[in-house]
Amino acid sequence: MAMERIILGVDPGSRCMGYGLVRERSGVLSLVEAGVVRPGEEAMSARLGLMYTRISELLHAHSPHAVAVENVFFARNSASALKLGQARGAVLAACGVHGAEVFGYEPTLVKKSLVGAGRAEKSQVSFMVGQLLGVKPDWAEDAGDALALAICHLNHSRFLAAVAAGQNGATRL
Amino acid sequence: MAMERIILGVDPGSRCMGYGLVRERSGVLSLVEAGVVRPGEEAMSARLGLMYTRISELLHAHSPHAVAVENVFFARNSASALKLGQARGAVLAACGVHGAEVFGYEPTLVKKSLVGAGRAEKSQVSFMVGQLLGVKPDWAEDAGDALALAICHLNHSRFLAAVAAGQNGATRL
Repeated sequence: MAMERIILGVDPGSRCMGYGLVRERSGVLSLVEAGVVRPGEEAMSARLGLMYTRISELLHAHSPHAVAVENVFFARNSASALKLGQARGAVLAACGVHGAEVFGYEPTLVKKSLVGAGRAEKSQVSFMVGQLLGVKPDWAEDAGDALALAICHLNHSRFLAAVAAGQNGATRL
Repeated sequence: MAMERIILGVDPGSRCMGYGLVRERSGVLSLVEAGVVRPGEEAMSARLGLMYTRISELLHAHSPHAVAVENVFFARNSASALKLGQARGAVLAACGVHGAEVFGYEPTLVKKSLVGAGRAEKSQVSFMVGQLLGVKPDWAEDAGDALALAICHLNHSRFLAAVAAGQNGATRL
């Protein structure tokens, strides 16, 4: 039987959360599902509840082998870091409740590993993700970033032993 | 029938989350339950999952009329703001999924309204909470802070119409 792995990538933001599931089967990547959760003007708790619920549904539906989330160690200021942290917390809590393994990747590493440049545009990332998955990139840009995270994790997972020892761009969350 | 309200106060932190439920019945306050969730060295997602689960259990068990959470607009740096935001996000997501109304209070307002000083020590806050609830304050300090938030919300809820208009120390989350 061919080995198959599914990875969920998530790009959490306070206004928009991108997600994408990538399947690797015998070394071939394919798109499972991608999308965004873009809550309206609900209260913050309701918005975070929607993000939590979507991640929880995806984990139940697809039982991914791991979840890859963007690491953020900088922010314009502590208020925006707090907001970003809240969105990330809703996503990580869903993974924790579900018992899913989560790995964090630096955005520059994700871009560099896919496009070759750490400061690539979102549209370049989406284009390359489409090439790798063999489909037209007709997803929202945040979903493209999420798919890129999933692909980055697949590419790097052979180094996970080293990652666990802190020698790589991924930190276990 | 006497009017009864139960408020859940939560003081989220990345290492320790305090919670406390206060009942108001005919103007008399009493302690329902208080405690802390202090995860060990699990992965961050597992820790946030534990916080989410505890809040979710409390909301199901007690159906509080509202949840009061500490507002944090400053942090030593954006890394600590991100961590604090993550813990807060797990708590707010649980409230959002449950459909609970959440209100945020400035820590200085909470302290001032209870102890008369915005920079009161945690032990002073716990002492005053014990006085108001008519019990010995034998809870962890973070639980005392959470109870103080619940009491602060009860004290302020008559002003909620003004709060909704942004004229008060509480912001709807």
